Amino acid sequence: MSRVRVHNFSISLDGFGTGDVQTLENPFGHVGERLHKWMISTDAFGGTGKRGIENDLVAHTIVGVGAMIMGRNMFSPHRGPWEDESWRGWWGDNPPYHNPVFVMTHHARPSLEMEGGTTFHFVSGTPQEVLAMAREAAGDLDIQVCGGVSTVRDFLAAGLIDEAHIAVAPVVVGRGERLWDGLEGLTETYDLVEAVGVDKMTHLRLVRKYSHATTVYPVCDFV
Amino acid sequence: MSRVRVHNFSISLDGFGTGDVQTLENPFGHVGERLHKWMISTDAFGGTGKRGIENDLVAHTIVGVGAMIMGRNMFSPHRGPWEDESWRGWWGDNPPYHNPVFVMTHHARPSLEMEGGTTFHFVSGTPQEVLAMAREAAGDLDIQVCGGVSTVRDFLAAGLIDEAHIAVAPVVVGRGERLWDGLEGLTETYDLVEAVGVDKMTHLRLVRKYSHATTVYPVCDFV
Repeated sequence: MSRVRVHNFSISLDGFGTGDVQTLENPFGHVGERLHKWMISTDAFGGTGKRGIENDLVAHTIVGVGAMIMGRNMFSPHRGPWEDESWRGWWGDNPPYHNPVFVMTHHARPSLEMEGGTTFHFVSGTPQEVLAMAREAAGDLDIQVCGGVSTVRDFLAAGLIDEAHIAVAPVVVGRGERLWDGLEGLTETYDLVEAVGVDKMTHLRLVRKYSHATTVYPVCDFV
Repeated sequence: MSRVRVHNFSISLDGFGTGDVQTLENPFGHVGERLHKWMISTDAFGGTGKRGIENDLVAHTIVGVGAMIMGRNMFSPHRGPWEDESWRGWWGDNPPYHNPVFVMTHHARPSLEMEGGTTFHFVSGTPQEVLAMAREAAGDLDIQVCGGVSTVRDFLAAGLIDEAHIAVAPVVVGRGERLWDGLEGLTETYDLVEAVGVDKMTHLRLVRKYSHATTVYPVCDFV
């Protein structure tokens, strides 16, 4: 069964997934790379030779994924209508996604085919509607919701995520966009099944409660 | 050397150390006991027979402590001048402190001697001034800063805490008082030396960086 997954989504101790203000030079604003240092330093991400639990977490990210979803602010530092279409994402000609990526935006733009199997599709709609498009593209494979903060938050609030890995970095950053805002009651829908401390990071695993699953897995249908 | 310690200080995933609104029936407002369930369930706290790392954390709380500090809102649900002096804290005739406890308040009141060695002293002053009183009372022993949220935050902001144990509970509570607010830059003064996951809780240990220590420990003074 196709699952909807979040991986490596990094926040500060005070819950910020990005700082302010996003610019071309600083995609995460004043926060810089402080939230993602743990991830960048792994072998799976950067070929650093650094193995261990965190490397395993990163290495498994893309396994079994057939389509991805991201918010427009994760794709681009620009806001509002596209001034021109020369912006092709932060990641160069061969982005690390290697899948169709559905970029949620109110501003239409033709799909953008990159090297390495990544194609950005610019789509509008509710989280449910965009997820339906991604499911269609993913076939039997899973869907990864990549970010940014408000996209992950909206999908969690709607109960559309099956499983989320949230990485809490050992910094207090004070301002930006908070993941947990408006998610009071999240733990009525999700179980925090795991909190693992690795080298000052905390890796949280949220799994939607069985009773809230949108996909029903028949245990036995011939009783 | 006398140290200033925080133990078992419990917050939600979104950083709230208490909910709103505090009442006589609900000292932690709408949050109830959700932040402290881990602590209450230990053998050291409740004689439950439940051992393990969390029990060790709780069991070591009072060891070596000679004086305590708490904010007025931790002592009482009332605000402003004392209407009468019949309120003697939430904890009955024999509070679990067994030490002089300095309650920070702008509203004077005679000291209150309880059973079991606890005496509440009602004092005003800056964190530095109140800490000086507590140090005087503690002698060679340590000082525990008990809470609530703003008291721990103010002492952390002033760099007066030597070591803090913060317990992060697996709930999102949405409103109340946040520990981390205004503590941007905390990790320039403190190292998060440990993040341990136990049974969905995360226990964080913050230690003031050596370079910011107010007490200088001479390693060798005869070179």
